[in-house]
Amino acid sequence: MSNSQEKNPLRDPRDRRLSRVAGPSALVFFGVTGDLARKKLLPAVYDLVNRGLLPPSFSMVGFGRRDWSDDDFRQQVRESVEAHSRTTFREDVWNQFATGIRFVQGAFDDDQAYENLKATLAELEETRGTQGNHAFYLSIPPKAFEKVLKQLSAHGLASREDKSWRRVVIEKPFGHNLESARELNSIVEEVFPADSVFRIDHYLGKETVQNLLALRFANQMFEPVWNANHIDHVQITMAEPFGIGSRAGYYDGVGAARDVIQNHLLQLLALTAMEEPISFNASHMRAEKEKVLEAVVLPEDLSQSFAVGQYTSGYQGGEEVNGFFDEKDIPADSRTETFAAIKVGINTRRWSGVPFYLRTGKRLGRRVTEIALVFKKSPNLLFDNNEDSGQNAIVIRVQPNEGMTIRFASKVPGTQNEIRNVNMDFGYTHSFTEESPEAYERLILDVLLGEPPLFPRHEEVELSWKILDPFEEYWEQHQIKPEPYEPGSWGPESSYDLLARDGREWRRP
Amino acid sequence: MSNSQEKNPLRDPRDRRLSRVAGPSALVFFGVTGDLARKKLLPAVYDLVNRGLLPPSFSMVGFGRRDWSDDDFRQQVRESVEAHSRTTFREDVWNQFATGIRFVQGAFDDDQAYENLKATLAELEETRGTQGNHAFYLSIPPKAFEKVLKQLSAHGLASREDKSWRRVVIEKPFGHNLESARELNSIVEEVFPADSVFRIDHYLGKETVQNLLALRFANQMFEPVWNANHIDHVQITMAEPFGIGSRAGYYDGVGAARDVIQNHLLQLLALTAMEEPISFNASHMRAEKEKVLEAVVLPEDLSQSFAVGQYTSGYQGGEEVNGFFDEKDIPADSRTETFAAIKVGINTRRWSGVPFYLRTGKRLGRRVTEIALVFKKSPNLLFDNNEDSGQNAIVIRVQPNEGMTIRFASKVPGTQNEIRNVNMDFGYTHSFTEESPEAYERLILDVLLGEPPLFPRHEEVELSWKILDPFEEYWEQHQIKPEPYEPGSWGPESSYDLLARDGREWRRP
Repeated sequence: MSNSQEKNPLRDPRDRRLSRVAGPSALVFFGVTGDLARKKLLPAVYDLVNRGLLPPSFSMVGFGRRDWSDDDFRQQVRESVEAHSRTTFREDVWNQFATGIRFVQGAFDDDQAYENLKATLAELEETRGTQGNHAFYLSIPPKAFEKVLKQLSAHGLASREDKSWRRVVIEKPFGHNLESARELNSIVEEVFPADSVFRIDHYLGKETVQNLLALRFANQMFEPVWNANHIDHVQITMAEPFGIGSRAGYYDGVGAARDVIQNHLLQLLALTAMEEPISFNASHMRAEKEKVLEAVVLPEDLSQSFAVGQYTSGYQGGEEVNGFFDEKDIPADSRTETFAAIKVGINTRRWSGVPFYLRTGKRLGRRVTEIALVFKKSPNLLFDNNEDSGQNAIVIRVQPNEGMTIRFASKVPGTQNEIRNVNMDFGYTHSFTEESPEAYERLILDVLLGEPPLFPRHEEVELSWKILDPFEEYWEQHQIKPEPYEPGSWGPESSYDLLARDGREWRRP
Repeated sequence: MSNSQEKNPLRDPRDRRLSRVAGPSALVFFGVTGDLARKKLLPAVYDLVNRGLLPPSFSMVGFGRRDWSDDDFRQQVRESVEAHSRTTFREDVWNQFATGIRFVQGAFDDDQAYENLKATLAELEETRGTQGNHAFYLSIPPKAFEKVLKQLSAHGLASREDKSWRRVVIEKPFGHNLESARELNSIVEEVFPADSVFRIDHYLGKETVQNLLALRFANQMFEPVWNANHIDHVQITMAEPFGIGSRAGYYDGVGAARDVIQNHLLQLLALTAMEEPISFNASHMRAEKEKVLEAVVLPEDLSQSFAVGQYTSGYQGGEEVNGFFDEKDIPADSRTETFAAIKVGINTRRWSGVPFYLRTGKRLGRRVTEIALVFKKSPNLLFDNNEDSGQNAIVIRVQPNEGMTIRFASKVPGTQNEIRNVNMDFGYTHSFTEESPEAYERLILDVLLGEPPLFPRHEEVELSWKILDPFEEYWEQHQIKPEPYEPGSWGPESSYDLLARDGREWRRP
């Protein structure tokens, strides 16, 4: 009657418990003056240094058009670190870190600049011992990818005949449909081998997303109900309270579905729905994610399986806000959606018949990302108010207030047999004294460690486009005009109709 | 793909939603000067009046030896109500209630007193319209049961040839073994028909115990894991921090197992383990409870399946406390246990192979009653620290802080793949604005409503003795000397050994 567990004799413990301190290396940022670099990437690097997770030899190079000296760049980095780092600024840590910071001035097509970069990296290898390990972080517009990659290749920066490594990091968007994604992937993988390409979806670096894996696979009580026998449907929501602001140049023609569903929401779907991998090694993880993405099926009648919207002007949080068409540089005939909801199925035994509803939008009620597994209704034959008792749900809150909520029915005190839905809550930040690192800390460290399980490979990106493209094509072919919705609402009426047609409704997140 | 539920066309809604206001009746208390009456029963009656759940005609009669007038008794009731009622004292409610209070003076064997009681009840029927409905609450020592019951019968108080009802309420202990329980039951049921006998186990009136039924049967997510496929074992604990005090006269020769396991803990076991009844009607509920109690099996080797203890003197909560043998009137050779733990199984498909560990004791670490369903260990092949991750558990806290805790594993922030157990909590009192009534309110109201589902019938009492008697007989035959344990501890070493032999351990409640 013992409940002890046999250890799996085939497992090498080194597979699982890797050293968490990166080895010697240099990280080169392209696009170092952008918002993302300033607010997230550079502070995240400093936080890693401050946590002792990068070695003393670690070096960081900025590449950009600005006419900066190393010291100018150091000053820029310091300002952004002091303003945005998660950990406390420490002068001694900074001083050590700063000695490894360099700046290389030049345009993306400037041959001489790449030669200078090469020389700088050689200098760092010699003076600081980076051992020739170089990661190139391309925080730049996708149209510049090809140019930079070819230059890296042409100047011998992308590979070397020794044990040192080269890696490249790219950020979404990974194309704007399947065809363009394939093109982009072929450009990238012409220069870097597939296992050296790190596609960053910063959502995957969030603790709660990773915690979803622990929840599913480190526990015994959730797995038995995590399937079509018990789950009625799944809702995945990412809502933003703000509008597109001055990002029309990027956003118009892209829209909510390409911007969020194709990457973040389909990745969340994959992690929620996939089978258990045999390990968290990249190849095992990716195989399961790809398997489930490949099993995604679209409803036969696509016209009844989506909702798209555009926010109107109005009031939000007591302030008057622009409508989508009031934003700078949005053409009056734009059919770009700022809200998108789609319904898909998954043709696996685990999920057959369970719809997955995905929605995202700007100018919605509040900032929230969550995954809700809604259970089938209990028959509730024993209780007085079985009409109102609703359905059990497991809700994984990705942000904010990361954690989990279980909704279940409980007896109303003092009554005979009345029940009411209550929430049981687990707050990630309340339960651990450890502070959650920023997503970019985890991801940058994983790049330097060469641990890619959280990064989608090109097959996943392409599979995601295969899911989204039919919707995008339908909208294009039928010239679908997004339905207006009020700022601060939860999207257009058609989004409610999408679920109402199935006898369901969206959770109020 | 609709998820609406068909209503069961065979159900009569009146079965389930009964009026919650009791009809006209009089409640007669025997043993009205005892602690229980003063602190719990009389205040509970007032609370029911105050909540509007008893009709204006409701009347209450005290029967006792004290030389009290009606007004003296009213004064006693008022004092105990003001001191112990849950709801706010309201003069107008009290005045209305007080007009229906009477006292009948007499000894339990005093014929004239029963004639006076009869006259008083007749007077109340005529002046207040109690319609001849009478409940007799015997808050008296078991040895007096027979006398009072026979007198009630002899004086024509136990039955009447009309539509009015007679009910009797008795409190534990219901005998001290199977044989004596059968005797008691036959005495009681000679006078009152089985469905007019209300055996009060006040634990069953607690909201959390009732909530256990809602948790199990109003939800869809717990049922699938509530069985031997997923549950490793169940622990049911009732711990008290205090000693026996001056109760040696009652306690010595009885002990923890008879005092608590036979009634409270086996009832909790029954509610935890039973199959879903087709309704909460008394007959359906009792049938399921009896079925599961009948399926309880004892381990083959009884000697390895229990632990008994006696508390020593020592310090608890910073105060020096008596040992069991220092308590007044405990003989130096007493083998009465103040701590008992037993292990049983249940031979149903749902629970086959799942041990149920029951423990109770005095002078333990703190006051707590809880039911813990401990899950099988997760294989946890994916995580770094699978040794330490423990097991999932659903813990139903009966008291204090009534509610539920789910223990599960979550990722430790900032680590690669380390997990740690965390708790997700639902607090009953935090989640409802409604205040929980006292157990006795619910139970007394149920008596007056004639709703017996929460009351064990004699078959259940006898089945519980059938489970306990073999242990008691073993202890007697083998002259088992209880093992000393420190006050403030969680019982003797042998209690830990009981689980350790099975590779398990007690939760620290």
